[in-house]
Amino acid sequence: MSRKPYPLASREEHPEDSIVRVGHVLIGGDQPVLMAGPCSVETREGLIDIALAVKSAGADILRGGAFKPRSSPYSFQGLGEEGLRYLAEARSITGMPVISEVMEPDAVALVAEYVDILQIGARNMQNFPLLKAVGKTNRPVMLKRGFSNTVEEWLMSAEYILAGGNPNVILCERGIRTFETSTRNTLDLNAVPVAQELTHLPVVVDPSHGTGYARYVLPMARAGIAAGASGLIVEVHPEPEKAVSDGQQSLTLDAFAEMVTQVRQVWTAVHGLPRGSSVAVGQINA
Amino acid sequence: MSRKPYPLASREEHPEDSIVRVGHVLIGGDQPVLMAGPCSVETREGLIDIALAVKSAGADILRGGAFKPRSSPYSFQGLGEEGLRYLAEARSITGMPVISEVMEPDAVALVAEYVDILQIGARNMQNFPLLKAVGKTNRPVMLKRGFSNTVEEWLMSAEYILAGGNPNVILCERGIRTFETSTRNTLDLNAVPVAQELTHLPVVVDPSHGTGYARYVLPMARAGIAAGASGLIVEVHPEPEKAVSDGQQSLTLDAFAEMVTQVRQVWTAVHGLPRGSSVAVGQINA
Amino acid sequence: MSRKPYPLASREEHPEDSIVRVGHVLIGGDQPVLMAGPCSVETREGLIDIALAVKSAGADILRGGAFKPRSSPYSFQGLGEEGLRYLAEARSITGMPVISEVMEPDAVALVAEYVDILQIGARNMQNFPLLKAVGKTNRPVMLKRGFSNTVEEWLMSAEYILAGGNPNVILCERGIRTFETSTRNTLDLNAVPVAQELTHLPVVVDPSHGTGYARYVLPMARAGIAAGASGLIVEVHPEPEKAVSDGQQSLTLDAFAEMVTQVRQVWTAVHGLPRGSSVAVGQINA
Amino acid sequence: MSRKPYPLASREEHPEDSIVRVGHVLIGGDQPVLMAGPCSVETREGLIDIALAVKSAGADILRGGAFKPRSSPYSFQGLGEEGLRYLAEARSITGMPVISEVMEPDAVALVAEYVDILQIGARNMQNFPLLKAVGKTNRPVMLKRGFSNTVEEWLMSAEYILAGGNPNVILCERGIRTFETSTRNTLDLNAVPVAQELTHLPVVVDPSHGTGYARYVLPMARAGIAAGASGLIVEVHPEPEKAVSDGQQSLTLDAFAEMVTQVRQVWTAVHGLPRGSSVAVGQINA
Repeated sequence: MSRKPYPLASREEHPEDSIVRVGHVLIGGDQPVLMAGPCSVETREGLIDIALAVKSAGADILRGGAFKPRSSPYSFQGLGEEGLRYLAEARSITGMPVISEVMEPDAVALVAEYVDILQIGARNMQNFPLLKAVGKTNRPVMLKRGFSNTVEEWLMSAEYILAGGNPNVILCERGIRTFETSTRNTLDLNAVPVAQELTHLPVVVDPSHGTGYARYVLPMARAGIAAGASGLIVEVHPEPEKAVSDGQQSLTLDAFAEMVTQVRQVWTAVHGLPRGSSVAVGQINA
Repeated sequence: MSRKPYPLASREEHPEDSIVRVGHVLIGGDQPVLMAGPCSVETREGLIDIALAVKSAGADILRGGAFKPRSSPYSFQGLGEEGLRYLAEARSITGMPVISEVMEPDAVALVAEYVDILQIGARNMQNFPLLKAVGKTNRPVMLKRGFSNTVEEWLMSAEYILAGGNPNVILCERGIRTFETSTRNTLDLNAVPVAQELTHLPVVVDPSHGTGYARYVLPMARAGIAAGASGLIVEVHPEPEKAVSDGQQSLTLDAFAEMVTQVRQVWTAVHGLPRGSSVAVGQINA
Repeated sequence: MSRKPYPLASREEHPEDSIVRVGHVLIGGDQPVLMAGPCSVETREGLIDIALAVKSAGADILRGGAFKPRSSPYSFQGLGEEGLRYLAEARSITGMPVISEVMEPDAVALVAEYVDILQIGARNMQNFPLLKAVGKTNRPVMLKRGFSNTVEEWLMSAEYILAGGNPNVILCERGIRTFETSTRNTLDLNAVPVAQELTHLPVVVDPSHGTGYARYVLPMARAGIAAGASGLIVEVHPEPEKAVSDGQQSLTLDAFAEMVTQVRQVWTAVHGLPRGSSVAVGQINA
Repeated sequence: MSRKPYPLASREEHPEDSIVRVGHVLIGGDQPVLMAGPCSVETREGLIDIALAVKSAGADILRGGAFKPRSSPYSFQGLGEEGLRYLAEARSITGMPVISEVMEPDAVALVAEYVDILQIGARNMQNFPLLKAVGKTNRPVMLKRGFSNTVEEWLMSAEYILAGGNPNVILCERGIRTFETSTRNTLDLNAVPVAQELTHLPVVVDPSHGTGYARYVLPMARAGIAAGASGLIVEVHPEPEKAVSDGQQSLTLDAFAEMVTQVRQVWTAVHGLPRGSSVAVGQINA
C-alpha cells in the first residue's frame, strides 16, 4: 500500500516510466516531443501556415489556444469553438496531433471532440471539478503546474485525473511565482527530477511561460531537456510583435528551428541516440 | 475614462465606499461584520449548535463548507447539497445569513438557491468561467484572493463579476504563499490598505487560513481590523480536534467569544462608535 | 534542556517576557515604544529639528542612519561618524535615546560609543561575525528580520548575540520579499505572535519598510500594535520629497503625530491603560 | 554613458565576455570549469584525499569551507586558518587552484593569503563593507547570488567589487527561496541567460545548494551547463553520510565522476569542442 497521497501517480506502485501515446507520438519515450504553435489561434490561414512551418522545423504536436484564461475580462478571450475547428483542420493538413486548453467542466466534451490532448492551465491546476471532468474522458491530459503549487500538490491534482479512470496524464512545468522580476516566472527545473523521482508520469517543460521573454527560451529549452524532461511546449509566431497575446515570449520560426536543432543535440548528449523501439523505455498506456 | 484595467472595481470612477447588504447585515458599513462557523458542514445538529453559539457570541453571518476544494481526491469532499440544506435550516433558525463556497459554473444556481453569499475560494480566483457565472446572479459574492495573486489580479477578477452585472462583491484577504513555514500562509494585511486605495469594494480578512493555527487567529483578527478591514471570516468548531477538516486553525467557541470582544474594542479605537445610520459611510448596492 | 536550537532566546527556559531598558524607556513594557526619525541623517540642524518635532509628537527614541547599506555603490552611503555625532547631539538636546545601524564588526565600537541601540539591518541578519561583535558589547541591539529569513532563523541569529553575553535583544519585523509588487515588502505580522510564542524577547514592527509607501504606514502601524507588537520604528521627514533616501515611505510630521494618537488608542484597546509600574509585565534585563 | 546602475558590470560598456584567469584555469572560456570539494574542510588527510580524487575525476578547482556561515551559533563554525592551510597544501600537491569563503572584512587579507578565489556567500551578497574589502584585493572573487536577491541587485553587488578596482568577478547562481519545500532552494537557471544578457562577467551554477539533495545534482548540473553557464561548483564527499555539514547534498566520488562525463557531453552539444585557444571567446582580465 502506498504511503503517498497520490497512489496512482506514485512510482511506489508503478515503478516503470509511463509513456503517453498521442497518435503516432510517444510522450515519455526515447525521443524529445516538441509541441509548438501560437499562444492564441488567431485566423484559419495563420494557424495553418504556422502549423506547416513548425512541422517542417521539427515539431511533433501543434499547440494553440481557443479558450484563453485572461486576467482581465476585457482582454481577448479566444475564438472558442471556431478556434478548435481551425486546430482540427490544421491537424488534418499536417498530420500533427493538436493540444488546446479547456477551462470548465461543461466545455470538456466540446474540446475533446476536436483536440488530441486536453490542456489544464496553471490557474486551473486545483480546479477540482475540471480535473474530475477530464478524468472521465479518454483523451490524454497535459496538467500544467500551478504557478504557486508544490510538486506534491501537482501530483495530487494528477491523482484526481487518474482516479477518474484516465491514465494518460502528462505533467508540464511552466514556472512559478517568486520575487524575481526580470523574468515573468521562475522556471523551476528542479521540479523535473523531483517529479520524476516521485511519479511515473512523463514531464515536459514550457520555457515560454517559464521565462516570459523569447530571448531566454532557447537556453532554457536546452536546460529543460538536460534536466531530463521528455519534451517541450513553446509558443511560436511568425510575427511575434503582431501576436494578439504573449508576443513577447513567442519564438520566431527561425528561432524555433534553431531551438529544435540544439535541443536534439542536448537530448542525444543526455540520452544517446533513439534506440529504434521507443517502447523499450517505458510502458505505454493504451 | 479609467486607466485601470478594472474600471468598475476602481475608485477612479466610483470614489465612495461600496456597502454590500446581505439581509440586515451591511458589509463595509460602520460596524465590523463577523462571519463564523465550521470549515465543513458535518452534521445537521452540529451545524445548528455552532450557528446558535456563534450568533450568541456576536457573529453576523454563518459560514460553512458544503462543496470543499481538497488537494487530495481521497479527502472528504463535503456534504454537497445536503450541507446546503443544513445551512439554510440554520439560517431559518438563527436569522443569520449564510455563506458557502461554489466551485464550478454548473453549481452556481444550486448554491445560490440556498445561500446568501457565494464564496469564490482562493484556488478559483482566476477560474474565469466561474467568475462569469456568479457575475450573472444577483447574490453577493465574496472573492478570496488567490494565494499567489497580486492585488491587481484580484481586482481584475472582481471586475469579471462586476462586468457580468453583479455589483455586490466583497474581497477577502486570506494569506499568500511565501517561504515562511511557521504559518500555513502569510497573511498579507498590506493588501487591506492597498485594496482600499484602489477599489471601493469592501475588504474582509480571514485570519484562520491566513495563519493556519488557532493560537494566532486572535492577534491577527485584531490586526486585520486595525489595518482597516470591514470584517472577518473565521473558522469555529466546538471541538476543533474532532473537525473533519482544518481543526488546527479552528477557534473554540470560547476563543471566538473572546475574539469578538477584542475585535470590537479595536474597531472602536480605530473608527469610533457606530454612528447610528450605517448608510452614512458609503453607498449601498441594492 | 531546551529542544530549540536557540535555548537562550527560547521561552522554554525563560517563560517570562523580557523587557529591554534603554535609558528611561522600557521596550516590552506596558506602553508602546515609538522610534522615529529620518532614514538618513542629512544635516545637523535638520536632524535636531526632526528630533524635537518627533519628540513633541510622542516619539520615545530617535532613529537615523549614519552608515547606510545601499544596493548601489554609487548611492549616498551616509555621513558616517559625522552622522553619529549629530545623533548624540540630538540626544543631549532632546533627552531621547538614539538608534542607528552598524554594518561591520570593526565599526561596532565606534557606533556603540555614540548610540543607545545598535541596529542590525535586514541584509545583515545572517552576518555572523557582526552578530558576534555586537554580542560582546553591553548596548541593546535591535535585530531586524532578514527579508527572506524564517522566524526560526531570526531567533537563531538572536541567539548569536545572546550567546555572546548580551541579553538585550529587540526583534524587529520589517517585511519580507514576496511576489507582490504593489508594496516594497510584505509586512509579515503573523511573525509577531509566532515570535512571541517562541521567544521572550520584545518584538517591534517597522511599517515604513514593511510597506514602502507613506500612505500605508498608518494602517499598518495600527495593525502591528493590534497584532501585539511592543512598539514601532518609522521613518519621518519634514519634507519627504526632499529626503536623500526612502522619501516615498517617510511620514510627514503631521502624519506621524496622527499615527501616535491612533496607535495609542489601539494599544489601549488591546492592553488596557498602563498599570503604573511597567516592571510588572516582565523582567528587565539590567 | 550606461543607464544601468552597474556601469562596470554592464555589457553596455563592455560587450565582450570577460574571462577570469585563475592560475592556468580560464573561467568563462571555451571549456566548462568544475569546482568540487567538501562543504567544510574537516581534516588534512581527508581534504588531500578528496582533492586528489576530484582532480582525477576532472575537477579544475578545489572548493572547501574554512570559515562557515552557520544559522546556529552552536553548529560547527569551520577550522578557520587551519582549514586554509590544508587548502593551500592540497593546492601544492594537486596543482589545483582553491576557493574558500571569506565572511568579514578583517579576514580578507588572511584568506587571500591562502586561496586563489575568494568566495562571497549568499548571505553576504549585500554585506557592503565585505564587498568593498574584496574589491581592494587582486584575488578573483566568486559572488554568490543572495537567496532572495534579484539579478539586478546581484549585479549592483558585483559593481561594488569592480568599483573597488578588482575586475575579476565570477557570478554564481545557487538557488533562491520560494514556497517549494521538496528542494532546499529553487535553482533559478533563468538567471543564467538573464545575467549573461546584462553583464560580461562569467556565470557559474551551484546545483548542490540549488537543490539540496545529491540525487538531484546531476540533472541540474547538466541543466546549468545547457542553460549556458561557464562552470559548476559542487559539493563532493567520499562518505556523505559522515560529512560534518551538508552531507545530504554532497556527491560521492563516483557520482561526481559520472557528472563530469555527462556535463562535458552537454557542453560539447551546446558549444562544440574546445577551439584550442580558449582566449578566443572573450577577453581575459589580467
